[in-house]
Amino acid sequence: MKQTDVVVIGGSAAGIPAAITCRRHYPEKNVMLIRKEKQVQIPCGIPYIYGTVNSPDNNMIPDGVLSNNEIELLIDEVKSIDKTQKIVSTANGEEVRYDKLIMAIGSEPLDLPIPGLDKKNVFTVKKEVNHLNKMLDAVNDAKDIVILGGGFIGVEFADECKKNRDANVTIVELMPHCLMLAFEEDLCIEAGEALKERGVNIITGVKLEEVNGDESISSVRLSNGQELKADLLIVGVGVKPNSKLAADAGLDVNRGGIVVDKNMRTSDDNIFACGDCTSKTSFFTGRQIGLRLASIATMEARIAGANLFSPRRHNYGAVGVFSTAIGDKVFAMAGLTEDLAKERGYEITCGEAEAPNRHPGGMPGMSKMKVKLTFNKRTGEIIGGQIRGGSSAGELINTVSACIQKKMTFDDLATFQIGTHPAVTASPIAYQLVNASENAIKNMR
Amino acid sequence: MKQTDVVVIGGSAAGIPAAITCRRHYPEKNVMLIRKEKQVQIPCGIPYIYGTVNSPDNNMIPDGVLSNNEIELLIDEVKSIDKTQKIVSTANGEEVRYDKLIMAIGSEPLDLPIPGLDKKNVFTVKKEVNHLNKMLDAVNDAKDIVILGGGFIGVEFADECKKNRDANVTIVELMPHCLMLAFEEDLCIEAGEALKERGVNIITGVKLEEVNGDESISSVRLSNGQELKADLLIVGVGVKPNSKLAADAGLDVNRGGIVVDKNMRTSDDNIFACGDCTSKTSFFTGRQIGLRLASIATMEARIAGANLFSPRRHNYGAVGVFSTAIGDKVFAMAGLTEDLAKERGYEITCGEAEAPNRHPGGMPGMSKMKVKLTFNKRTGEIIGGQIRGGSSAGELINTVSACIQKKMTFDDLATFQIGTHPAVTASPIAYQLVNASENAIKNMR
Repeated sequence: MKQTDVVVIGGSAAGIPAAITCRRHYPEKNVMLIRKEKQVQIPCGIPYIYGTVNSPDNNMIPDGVLSNNEIELLIDEVKSIDKTQKIVSTANGEEVRYDKLIMAIGSEPLDLPIPGLDKKNVFTVKKEVNHLNKMLDAVNDAKDIVILGGGFIGVEFADECKKNRDANVTIVELMPHCLMLAFEEDLCIEAGEALKERGVNIITGVKLEEVNGDESISSVRLSNGQELKADLLIVGVGVKPNSKLAADAGLDVNRGGIVVDKNMRTSDDNIFACGDCTSKTSFFTGRQIGLRLASIATMEARIAGANLFSPRRHNYGAVGVFSTAIGDKVFAMAGLTEDLAKERGYEITCGEAEAPNRHPGGMPGMSKMKVKLTFNKRTGEIIGGQIRGGSSAGELINTVSACIQKKMTFDDLATFQIGTHPAVTASPIAYQLVNASENAIKNMR
Repeated sequence: MKQTDVVVIGGSAAGIPAAITCRRHYPEKNVMLIRKEKQVQIPCGIPYIYGTVNSPDNNMIPDGVLSNNEIELLIDEVKSIDKTQKIVSTANGEEVRYDKLIMAIGSEPLDLPIPGLDKKNVFTVKKEVNHLNKMLDAVNDAKDIVILGGGFIGVEFADECKKNRDANVTIVELMPHCLMLAFEEDLCIEAGEALKERGVNIITGVKLEEVNGDESISSVRLSNGQELKADLLIVGVGVKPNSKLAADAGLDVNRGGIVVDKNMRTSDDNIFACGDCTSKTSFFTGRQIGLRLASIATMEARIAGANLFSPRRHNYGAVGVFSTAIGDKVFAMAGLTEDLAKERGYEITCGEAEAPNRHPGGMPGMSKMKVKLTFNKRTGEIIGGQIRGGSSAGELINTVSACIQKKMTFDDLATFQIGTHPAVTASPIAYQLVNASENAIKNMR
């Protein structure tokens, strides 16, 4: 039987930083990471295999991140956990005794009750290299690609599938617009228009009812009666947590995944969990929520890894910080949308500001950046922010996230000490975060 | 005699937002802005007139920002203030009675005791259109340009003067490297190398002793005995606050400028001041400091404007947030450098992290982004951050600034909830702010 201080199960966006964090905080401990995949994909990079980077080979997380941190790697599948004996058992018959265990076993695509999803050339988005390679061949051969789901995965796949190809690409989305679970309506509309400009067809407000064809898919039938020609269907409509291994071991699980406390500890004191496999709560309400993001996974992993032998970090719940890019436009969101804030019972005030992201506007690379901020009217605290702009919106949304996490008020934000420069930001007079905050105060009157 | 509720003196980076903020917070008040310039330049954009945007006409702040906010504009020079009668008097003989007054009268280039600075083709950097146009003609005609001072203005002018021209451009800097008042030594060296690659000559560790020539400059003599051919000298070595108008009116001033309290109020209860003309204190120590930046000016203006008729905002002192760009490299800093933190008596721990600002690294636009963070070891609070990277470094430094202002600790930062995306940021595993914080904790051992 093998023996180690710490076992991490899972080698993706949660497992890797969990193991590294443990190494950083407990340099004297032996850390072993067990994963079933020979090679690991960057999860958020998967859509970009189908256009920009061209192959799963160009989307790998190198194992050097483990070996450089002296983390032992075992490629095998954990089949069971004996939490009393503190032993994990693998598919290849290995047994490993641990002192502390971290479960970072991720999620898998939802099973949908749609007839015909078992036909050839129907793909869910799994993080396995072989699967992704088969899908790449299918995308390269396809003439009519249908993508089910207009969330981040669906939108990014659609945009990528159009690159260097003349296939028809159609998104089928249940809601009135794409990306509606992430952004406010105006941004969803803008994003939809950007996609259409790039040649993507979008059909909204419909369900996909059935996949037709013999062995292979030939078309899909929608709830409005429409039949769409399709020789490839990509299903990108959400994931469910992998929690069976935990449930089988007798750990508490709920429909959101493995139950963890603020220290990322499961119902067993020696077992921690992080990432897509855990049940999550909202930063704002403490309620259980369904958000699953690589960036939340890494945050949880850094709490779990640091807390293993003595708690020092708390999980305050997920803020929810997203961004995506369509062409040269970036769309980003942190915290609650205006509608969601109202649903959660907040009395709110919002402010917007749009300005060039250079000053003067004639500086190279100028595009207009628009910011909308939402504040709790009773406390003045920021609870949400949305941005549409150039590539620096990807970092500006993290400034908004910092402000939300530290509960900055509209006055804090209006007098926020910024750095500005003609070549890379708006002018200090027009700076969008500051002006959106001032407008939110003004809009309270 | 004219009469208005609020008079703002000065129409640049402090005066404009002061007037707009007053309008936003006190919509019922009449606001008049008095400035002596017919047209206003974007102050930080001035170096870019000499290469990228080509003319002061392309670097204007349009007067629409005033008229859109119903701010009355008077172009005239205020010559005196009678604070007892609450009347300002102008060069053209106007008298305006005010209820509240905001002084935003800026700064002007330092007078240097160097013989020959009065010769033709020696220019300081003033914010006046005529002056800047004359300077543009001179730059276009010059063969050998010497720039005195390797701070932001000097460095940016040097880079711009090389664009579309084959003039020799040489920076003369007293310190061992350029930009040493802003960045840590490693970044100063990198910035210097980037400038040299772009054809700028740099001579450091020397004083400029004398300007030679008959009517016009022909050369400069340095403290190492070297004589440099020069048909144009640009002097960019700092500014002094304009405080004479305030001193003449009987307001308290010190060598840093007009003395203001935390509410941006001068020693007269009805007179506020903001921007380059005011004496400033450090966010970290409360000591008087010499920082003057447009972004500090706008922050102070938004405090002054909001506080005019009832204080609601505090000035917590200047953090100091800078960025500059040389080619496609951005250099940025917020708060204290490691050396400055030590000088101020802090026991510190630092951490660094460098990673591609895309994931996977093959995504378009990839460059390496490097972050160094400095923390107070006793409290864990972040007190400084430095970045070298692509254009999004200009916003990332504002995330660092938010963290400093809200006194986030290394644990807060290590578990900071970020948004990441393949096309616009580092991966969540490699995200630089988070990893630099973890490394700072690790480096405490």
